[in-house]
Amino acid sequence: MKQIGILGASGYAGAEVVRILLSHPLEKNLRVSSVSFEGKTLDSIYPALAAKKGQSLMLENADEVVAASDIVFSCLPNGFAEKTAKICQEGGKLFIDLSADFRFGTDEATYAAWYGKNYSYPELHSMSVYGLPELNRVAIAKAQIIGNPGCYPTSSELGLYPALVNCFAETEGIIIDSMSGVTGSGRDPSQASHYPECADSISPYKVGAHRHQPEIDRCLSQMAGLPVSSVFTPHLAPMGRGIVSTIYFRLKKPMTIEALHSAYRDFYEREPFVRVLPLGAFSSNHNVKFSNYCDISVHLSSNKAMGIIVSSIDNMVKGAAGQAVQNMNLALGIEETTGLLMVPPAF
Amino acid sequence: MKQIGILGASGYAGAEVVRILLSHPLEKNLRVSSVSFEGKTLDSIYPALAAKKGQSLMLENADEVVAASDIVFSCLPNGFAEKTAKICQEGGKLFIDLSADFRFGTDEATYAAWYGKNYSYPELHSMSVYGLPELNRVAIAKAQIIGNPGCYPTSSELGLYPALVNCFAETEGIIIDSMSGVTGSGRDPSQASHYPECADSISPYKVGAHRHQPEIDRCLSQMAGLPVSSVFTPHLAPMGRGIVSTIYFRLKKPMTIEALHSAYRDFYEREPFVRVLPLGAFSSNHNVKFSNYCDISVHLSSNKAMGIIVSSIDNMVKGAAGQAVQNMNLALGIEETTGLLMVPPAF
Amino acid sequence: MKQIGILGASGYAGAEVVRILLSHPLEKNLRVSSVSFEGKTLDSIYPALAAKKGQSLMLENADEVVAASDIVFSCLPNGFAEKTAKICQEGGKLFIDLSADFRFGTDEATYAAWYGKNYSYPELHSMSVYGLPELNRVAIAKAQIIGNPGCYPTSSELGLYPALVNCFAETEGIIIDSMSGVTGSGRDPSQASHYPECADSISPYKVGAHRHQPEIDRCLSQMAGLPVSSVFTPHLAPMGRGIVSTIYFRLKKPMTIEALHSAYRDFYEREPFVRVLPLGAFSSNHNVKFSNYCDISVHLSSNKAMGIIVSSIDNMVKGAAGQAVQNMNLALGIEETTGLLMVPPAF
Amino acid sequence: MKQIGILGASGYAGAEVVRILLSHPLEKNLRVSSVSFEGKTLDSIYPALAAKKGQSLMLENADEVVAASDIVFSCLPNGFAEKTAKICQEGGKLFIDLSADFRFGTDEATYAAWYGKNYSYPELHSMSVYGLPELNRVAIAKAQIIGNPGCYPTSSELGLYPALVNCFAETEGIIIDSMSGVTGSGRDPSQASHYPECADSISPYKVGAHRHQPEIDRCLSQMAGLPVSSVFTPHLAPMGRGIVSTIYFRLKKPMTIEALHSAYRDFYEREPFVRVLPLGAFSSNHNVKFSNYCDISVHLSSNKAMGIIVSSIDNMVKGAAGQAVQNMNLALGIEETTGLLMVPPAF
Repeated sequence: MKQIGILGASGYAGAEVVRILLSHPLEKNLRVSSVSFEGKTLDSIYPALAAKKGQSLMLENADEVVAASDIVFSCLPNGFAEKTAKICQEGGKLFIDLSADFRFGTDEATYAAWYGKNYSYPELHSMSVYGLPELNRVAIAKAQIIGNPGCYPTSSELGLYPALVNCFAETEGIIIDSMSGVTGSGRDPSQASHYPECADSISPYKVGAHRHQPEIDRCLSQMAGLPVSSVFTPHLAPMGRGIVSTIYFRLKKPMTIEALHSAYRDFYEREPFVRVLPLGAFSSNHNVKFSNYCDISVHLSSNKAMGIIVSSIDNMVKGAAGQAVQNMNLALGIEETTGLLMVPPAF
Repeated sequence: MKQIGILGASGYAGAEVVRILLSHPLEKNLRVSSVSFEGKTLDSIYPALAAKKGQSLMLENADEVVAASDIVFSCLPNGFAEKTAKICQEGGKLFIDLSADFRFGTDEATYAAWYGKNYSYPELHSMSVYGLPELNRVAIAKAQIIGNPGCYPTSSELGLYPALVNCFAETEGIIIDSMSGVTGSGRDPSQASHYPECADSISPYKVGAHRHQPEIDRCLSQMAGLPVSSVFTPHLAPMGRGIVSTIYFRLKKPMTIEALHSAYRDFYEREPFVRVLPLGAFSSNHNVKFSNYCDISVHLSSNKAMGIIVSSIDNMVKGAAGQAVQNMNLALGIEETTGLLMVPPAF
Repeated sequence: MKQIGILGASGYAGAEVVRILLSHPLEKNLRVSSVSFEGKTLDSIYPALAAKKGQSLMLENADEVVAASDIVFSCLPNGFAEKTAKICQEGGKLFIDLSADFRFGTDEATYAAWYGKNYSYPELHSMSVYGLPELNRVAIAKAQIIGNPGCYPTSSELGLYPALVNCFAETEGIIIDSMSGVTGSGRDPSQASHYPECADSISPYKVGAHRHQPEIDRCLSQMAGLPVSSVFTPHLAPMGRGIVSTIYFRLKKPMTIEALHSAYRDFYEREPFVRVLPLGAFSSNHNVKFSNYCDISVHLSSNKAMGIIVSSIDNMVKGAAGQAVQNMNLALGIEETTGLLMVPPAF
Repeated sequence: MKQIGILGASGYAGAEVVRILLSHPLEKNLRVSSVSFEGKTLDSIYPALAAKKGQSLMLENADEVVAASDIVFSCLPNGFAEKTAKICQEGGKLFIDLSADFRFGTDEATYAAWYGKNYSYPELHSMSVYGLPELNRVAIAKAQIIGNPGCYPTSSELGLYPALVNCFAETEGIIIDSMSGVTGSGRDPSQASHYPECADSISPYKVGAHRHQPEIDRCLSQMAGLPVSSVFTPHLAPMGRGIVSTIYFRLKKPMTIEALHSAYRDFYEREPFVRVLPLGAFSSNHNVKFSNYCDISVHLSSNKAMGIIVSSIDNMVKGAAGQAVQNMNLALGIEETTGLLMVPPAF
């Protein structure tokens, strides 16, 4: 019987980790924490999660939850993970962080530049692993501290991995134009997420200045084996869940669409959660909702100069909670897909 | 190993039965049919259903599917079920019909008046059962032909059952004001379901003339033990899934809100899929999406003369495919909730 | 040249008054105030309103705006109107209040019971007029203080006026089931208006307890000439603008649908902003958006016992700012429809 | 009194031309045609357009409408404009075509390659003008045949004009990533525009193969004075109206964001319908709905290598009917903005 703690369970990422784990077959006991709602039940905040039978989950103090847990999912805002990571590392607990705090490894300078904070425990970052299973599966299996990737980075990196590792793509001039559903901005209401102002419209934001830019570039550089500086533009789209990234790269040499498509299909053939669509199909978040899939479609520009990849995920699942559970499975040494093979609704 | 056939699997109800059964633990083999798409795979129509591993489901001829099946879900348009029901009855197969054809039992006159067609095999209707488990659980367990309820009727009937059976409600003057998501109109495009014309607006339709009116009245009459003639108004709402029915009835004698609420809570205490919300909460389809739950909230009018019940379901699950699988579980004698305890997403 | 002041112009109702007046042909000068955004321009909050040519409107202090104005639209929260009304009354200014403060005339008890506040200047309420032009046109033309109706009340009252004044409807047991777009909850973000929680779902709220209930009942009583106690239920619907009220009343004696329809059509024949739809059509907010129209469709229940009226408006126009301008036109003695005949978009 | 005919008035573009002209102050008489709905009134198809007073517009035969008109707006599908253009040219009538038929001037080869049809009257194309007023204002004023631009091209071309004509942008490697609302696919229902399949999701389509690609490239080449081959990707977004194009170009030499922004602001200073937003603001279709504005925001990529322009329009107004009326104004020699200065709703 595993003891699993979810910190920040009243936020969207935390609540989604809970939802996924509730259907996970691992023998387990869930404990949840929340600063704002300590003492309330999780279903008083999210009535959807009300169990017809059995007990409600009570939101507790984070320290108590950590102390009682073998596995800790930290779903707190950026900047709060290190202290708990330290406790977990010393206590032999598995620590999976859904914030940005453990996504930059030893590159403290970049983290500090974009997040305004230095590392308190640099040694923890040396031993942490960036939790993109398709890239780092072996390291994740041995890791005790896992930095779960951001939502935009997950869709972007999976969309570019075959092209970079197989050297089809010029590394200069890569463009990632991404649309995100409004759950991406979290549970707290704001003017940007106020229905009358975001419904029925597309709004770019933080153009040239989003914190996922350095995370993406760091990972793409690792994939390419040389420094990559991409251009990433996020937009808010009127949908609940989902990220659709349309990605452009110049081809190093001319390729047929068939060759480009085959390269992607072959590369991801054995990946359980990446579906390369048939030639002629178009990737959309419509087909991956509430699932851990990343759907990728492959295209050429009409002038044949560029490869165009569309990469879609559910930002809350493959872009957050589902990938975190995938990482847990790997780190526990159980089948990677356990509890994650939910079929996305067709409509 | 059960052989299960789904007829009309390319429609929304059929595809949702498939989706639910794909995660159902019963040892089984699925066969699917479609008139329009015979010879294609189901995931060529619904890419969401593409299996990463294993084979695609091929859409076959209905006759072959029926012949090969132990259990048949018929998801065809109204008027096509009887012939297959006959074959199933004679062949000892379980037949679950998601159209209106087996919802009226021996009341052929009402069926004929509203659906423009007489019964071909009246004896099949005598032995069929109306598949609302909360009302007919025992009969369903013994049934070979089950008429799965309509979506509006399911939400309405569950919302009124405690008030009618316990005689709080005047049976005269009951009003059911219902909102439905656009999946309720099926997969075929139409002007009414064209995004620019249905998004961002509420549209009543078939006011005083919807075919679910006689189905609702027939069931309410059974619950009340005397003839009930309700007033039911459907509206199309700009959402994918869900039905929210706001139901009004005059109280036979004054009741406190606490007493009314307790009556509902007690009545449904042991029902696995009906959640009576805490006093002060409001039922919404938001909290039941992609699940088999019916969420009910209980209210009084400000002048205390009327009970107001809000009853919400996912029209494709408890209002169609989920309830059909619940009926299958009952008829097979396995635990009623098997494969149906999916937790609805909180957002 | 009229000086027109809009108080609370940074809120939704205020900004919509500005938008409508910008296209109004009256020779005028607009001044705007805001507590929260004093010193900023209105288009810094609402970029849609940016004038390509000419100057931005600067948000000023309310006292200065009132002092400089001949006509004052007060778009402040409930409870703030009286002081300004007093100044306007003494200064010979026209005062149009979009809050609830002047909707209850001499019925201070009801106002106090529902809004938790007594009148400071009861004499102002004696001279104020409830600004529903279809009911009070003559009085509005002579008024100096006008209480602009609420959004739900406008749709409800126009939907019931012919039935009550012509005595078709039983006054007991009237039910008003209303859907509102999210702009109805104003500009301030909240959990209820947070996109991921209100999109794609219908949520009833304040059932049996909404402040528009007494306003509706007061007006219906005036129309019927005897006390009416209706049952009103508001719901939040996933749309920006619009109210759709489905209204049920028992017929005093049997009527054909043709007779009921004719009665409505004749009654509203000369009203410039009420469109009674052809028999067989269904009223929807889709067709009145951004316009001052109220679209009414007339139906009978299938059991012929009840009249069913669907009444749709744009909550921000006929339900707020448009009706306020209509009242201004009347009070100024100019053609009532001036600046208000915008054609609603067809899609 | 001008006689104005709108052919194909039952389609979205045609109905929107009617709506705009109904509020246009020109003394005029409107005649409308429709193949599918001849003999019906326009408001029987679009109830929003029902006039409270005055007569409905009757849909007539196109030939009769053309014969009776001084000005003809042709809103028919691609491939049907030439015959009518010929009649208009010979009859001294002004002809404004909203299809693609007159967008390619003398470049018959490109038109034939993408639209599968040769010119019947090449001489008409020699005299026709591409109706983008910001580019061709003088020529439009003298034109008798005007090819109104496509929706995607309008947003793209206005977004790139200053950068190309002032030579900031490398002409190689321009990327245009566009989102369109569902009205862009017209009035006819289809699987792609079926609410349950397009709501709540982003779907790219015709990647590398959309017919607006050659139109865009032709116009960009004219602006740049040398051949431009851009990469254009359309997506369907869950919104009614609007196009948001995010445009990427490499800077020929480094520029500060201030310099780039000033260049755009100065360039468009005197354009009545192009609003270059203040530095730091983001263009969104939210702020241009139902208006003839094009809102442009100016950005730099984080690596400073690329200019990023976001260009938003209402696809039915500046992207179709509004621009057509703007062209009519120019061709008639009346003030260009007549009837087009509607203020977009702020929410």
